[in-house]
Amino acid sequence: MAHTPPTRRDGTVSGTGDGSHDGVRYRVYEIIFEADTGAGKAFDLALIVAIVASVLVVMIESVAAYRIEYGEFLRIAEWVFTIAFTIEYVLRLACVGRPVAYATSFFGIIDLLAVLPTFLSLLLPGAQFMLVIRLLRILRVFRVLKLARFTKASSSLLVSLRASRHKIAVFVFAVLTLVVVLGSLMYLVEGGEHGFTSIPRSVYWAIVTLTTVGYGDVVPHTPLGQALAACIMIMGYGIIAVPTGIVTAELVRGERPDDAHDSRHACRQCTAEGHRVDAVHCYRCGESIE
Amino acid sequence: MAHTPPTRRDGTVSGTGDGSHDGVRYRVYEIIFEADTGAGKAFDLALIVAIVASVLVVMIESVAAYRIEYGEFLRIAEWVFTIAFTIEYVLRLACVGRPVAYATSFFGIIDLLAVLPTFLSLLLPGAQFMLVIRLLRILRVFRVLKLARFTKASSSLLVSLRASRHKIAVFVFAVLTLVVVLGSLMYLVEGGEHGFTSIPRSVYWAIVTLTTVGYGDVVPHTPLGQALAACIMIMGYGIIAVPTGIVTAELVRGERPDDAHDSRHACRQCTAEGHRVDAVHCYRCGESIE
Amino acid sequence: MAHTPPTRRDGTVSGTGDGSHDGVRYRVYEIIFEADTGAGKAFDLALIVAIVASVLVVMIESVAAYRIEYGEFLRIAEWVFTIAFTIEYVLRLACVGRPVAYATSFFGIIDLLAVLPTFLSLLLPGAQFMLVIRLLRILRVFRVLKLARFTKASSSLLVSLRASRHKIAVFVFAVLTLVVVLGSLMYLVEGGEHGFTSIPRSVYWAIVTLTTVGYGDVVPHTPLGQALAACIMIMGYGIIAVPTGIVTAELVRGERPDDAHDSRHACRQCTAEGHRVDAVHCYRCGESIE
Amino acid sequence: MAHTPPTRRDGTVSGTGDGSHDGVRYRVYEIIFEADTGAGKAFDLALIVAIVASVLVVMIESVAAYRIEYGEFLRIAEWVFTIAFTIEYVLRLACVGRPVAYATSFFGIIDLLAVLPTFLSLLLPGAQFMLVIRLLRILRVFRVLKLARFTKASSSLLVSLRASRHKIAVFVFAVLTLVVVLGSLMYLVEGGEHGFTSIPRSVYWAIVTLTTVGYGDVVPHTPLGQALAACIMIMGYGIIAVPTGIVTAELVRGERPDDAHDSRHACRQCTAEGHRVDAVHCYRCGESIE
Repeated sequence: MAHTPPTRRDGTVSGTGDGSHDGVRYRVYEIIFEADTGAGKAFDLALIVAIVASVLVVMIESVAAYRIEYGEFLRIAEWVFTIAFTIEYVLRLACVGRPVAYATSFFGIIDLLAVLPTFLSLLLPGAQFMLVIRLLRILRVFRVLKLARFTKASSSLLVSLRASRHKIAVFVFAVLTLVVVLGSLMYLVEGGEHGFTSIPRSVYWAIVTLTTVGYGDVVPHTPLGQALAACIMIMGYGIIAVPTGIVTAELVRGERPDDAHDSRHACRQCTAEGHRVDAVHCYRCGESIE
Repeated sequence: MAHTPPTRRDGTVSGTGDGSHDGVRYRVYEIIFEADTGAGKAFDLALIVAIVASVLVVMIESVAAYRIEYGEFLRIAEWVFTIAFTIEYVLRLACVGRPVAYATSFFGIIDLLAVLPTFLSLLLPGAQFMLVIRLLRILRVFRVLKLARFTKASSSLLVSLRASRHKIAVFVFAVLTLVVVLGSLMYLVEGGEHGFTSIPRSVYWAIVTLTTVGYGDVVPHTPLGQALAACIMIMGYGIIAVPTGIVTAELVRGERPDDAHDSRHACRQCTAEGHRVDAVHCYRCGESIE
Repeated sequence: MAHTPPTRRDGTVSGTGDGSHDGVRYRVYEIIFEADTGAGKAFDLALIVAIVASVLVVMIESVAAYRIEYGEFLRIAEWVFTIAFTIEYVLRLACVGRPVAYATSFFGIIDLLAVLPTFLSLLLPGAQFMLVIRLLRILRVFRVLKLARFTKASSSLLVSLRASRHKIAVFVFAVLTLVVVLGSLMYLVEGGEHGFTSIPRSVYWAIVTLTTVGYGDVVPHTPLGQALAACIMIMGYGIIAVPTGIVTAELVRGERPDDAHDSRHACRQCTAEGHRVDAVHCYRCGESIE
Repeated sequence: MAHTPPTRRDGTVSGTGDGSHDGVRYRVYEIIFEADTGAGKAFDLALIVAIVASVLVVMIESVAAYRIEYGEFLRIAEWVFTIAFTIEYVLRLACVGRPVAYATSFFGIIDLLAVLPTFLSLLLPGAQFMLVIRLLRILRVFRVLKLARFTKASSSLLVSLRASRHKIAVFVFAVLTLVVVLGSLMYLVEGGEHGFTSIPRSVYWAIVTLTTVGYGDVVPHTPLGQALAACIMIMGYGIIAVPTGIVTAELVRGERPDDAHDSRHACRQCTAEGHRVDAVHCYRCGESIE
């Protein structure tokens, strides 16, 4: 996601050396890749609207009734979005410091995949259904989070999730082991005639049950199977508590109000500690601090 | 919700200038809008009983069997409630300082919409089904929370929810992106013959699955689809943990004994707030506080 | 649950004044109502085994296949348990200080209702089905918790739940309002032909959905209904977080390790506070405390 | 799990007294049972791959379509894994200090049961279906956790779960009582014609509902039953909050930064532990510490 900022463009630019040309490139870079200037924000917002609109077009086109009625219009809209995104892609390639780095980055590949299917559909009918990949472009929407105070909220969430990734890995691992063992058990107990036709299907059932989704497409019919299923559900109670506990504990830890206190500075006069971070005077003796 | 209190009625009152008339208006205002006096509390309780009763009447009327048997009685009850609420609405308009402000406020519109359908049903048969809007009046019931010690509990909950609104917005946004991507994937994997007839319907399925509701009306049938669904469910484990963690962390933080900060006293010199409870001097200007 | 302990039996006993007789009564009281002595513990355990066994008999009898095959044996077992519980009930009445207080207490009534149906079934065939009330006797099992270290765990849970009862009441209230409004909305959107035959049934659906139970017996069929249902489910995410947050925050607060600290005693020499509860010497100056 | 390390092998070894032979045994022991050396880690990883692969073979064989097509290959793979695991089992027996202790340990029995069914299938056709027991070998995978930093994460989770085991026991007990009482109630309310054919089945329904799994295979049909079910679901809201709260509170407590106590230093005089981090004197004997 961290594309090379063209601060050292001088060296990497393969172009003219023309300063004004570089100025244009930098300006375009600022607009497309950054969100600090007014034009950059406007571009980001327009991009998000275009992505959401193009995703909506794909979604609407997938509904048979609408496809029949508004097929022509949806087709045109699709091409408009494709051409716009293609221009955007070319501009990104043109203005970024290291085009190869961008083209092989996560978003670079997605940006390419987002436009390819429409062009492919000219050669191969049906390829436009792969346009659904364009949906991944929606992930770019998260860049808009940079615009607002959501940055702090989302980074705080990510920090908590990252801090608890080892615990979550252990947990997911334990759950996977459990559903394989329980699913196999149910396969032996219930057998194929009650829908538990194979161990993978029984494992699927175990996951559906343990996560409390409970579709009801596979369901135990024998008393023993139902008793076992009841045990699994009660167990699921405790299990669902674990990820919640992990994430909550991280969030609670991350949000200790101590952050709002300066615990490293003491008043030189009275040695009082725990001043506000923005304190100018000691809360106890009134002496100037810092 | 904060209607103009008629404390500055002198100016805004368009009426007589007659002091005793104003006294009556103020008394009615006190009874209808406030809940500090005995009469005010009695009115609020009576209003809640009436709202709940009228809602029950609408609910009962929607059951075909009861509508046939007790239709006459239910119709009469409906008119009684409608007339009572109309009188109440007129009184509210009459006694409030700025009638227009009230009439265009959230509750003012609901109060009007709550009585309109019955009158409309005289002209347009069938309009009384819109009476269901009256159900929104039930939100007024929350005013009764002011009566009791539930104020603290509900405000503490609201503070926690408000404090975590940015995190919740980021979370809802991430979930929506996820269900669109996952739903589209399942649309490609399962296809129309297994119930995933369109992307919107697949997104609906993804939401039903990720929230662990799991109706079972749309269900994956292919092994690949079931494997993908299983991944989504395991993912849902972690995802359901996030809002719980957010709200819990806020509640834990919100309940720290007094938050170690005095939020009620401001420095008389520089109006800085948020002093330590044991502070003797303002942390900003160093002035002695209380 | 707190039956009058016969510590002041002298006055309330209506009987003989015979000291040895009183001694027997007190001994029986100790065995039946208390769990401090070896005999009391043995009685409690035997009682629990008997209650669980009698409940199992009722449960097994409800299964048609077993009723046909083992009907005779189950009938006899039922009478054995009924007679045993009747003797126990009479003994409780006899040995307790205030029989009327016991007979009209929660457990007194349950103890009576637990034996009545079997006797009634002699007069009215079919009355034995009311024996299911005996199941409530299983609540007595919680008395065994007094026996072990589970007391602390359960009281800690109860304290947390009690401390958060106002918040829980506000929450349940908000949820009830929400499901009525949402259920009515779905009744208008979906209508009777899709299973939403009345507002109460729609409210039932809203509860099934919001609690993420999701039976699938009532399910939205129109696109608008499904979109609305999806919103309700996403909302349910946040809503399920609230009770969890409330209870967790209480438990976290209740378990602050400060409990392990004596916050009430300060060292007389150096006034340091926050000693361990079992501290004999001040951690700062080493002076003997207490 | 803690097999006797052959540190005192000198005594227990029944073999030759040949030092080099012992050296070989110790080397094999190190590779098979420990994960500190490179060879030990490689063996553990290979073992995990083999276990997962053999489990996959069993799972794939349970699918009718694959069994028909690749039956021959799967049969061979099964024998390869069985022979490999048999060799591993014999090696474990040979190199461990106390073979009997290993053979009767949890993993020793599982290791034996994992290979027996294939051999039994030579005598008894069909016995290979018991191979599913081999799935339990997957539990050995957790040994790999020793390899990485997951140790801390998993032990932290286990400590939290163990610390809250009394609360969880009380909770499970309360839930079981509740589902028996509620299930019986629903059996009386709904009756056999709506799927509630017996009390055990109704209890099964109550568990499915209370855990918010909600299959939809048994569903209330009468208005009274639906109202009762709605109450149970709302109740389930609060109930699901309890285990989450318990585990979260433990995790939050367990992650307190050093718990304000120094658990690594013991008083040199009286060996008391758990001093405050800032303690200068032992809280028990008053001796100066540090």
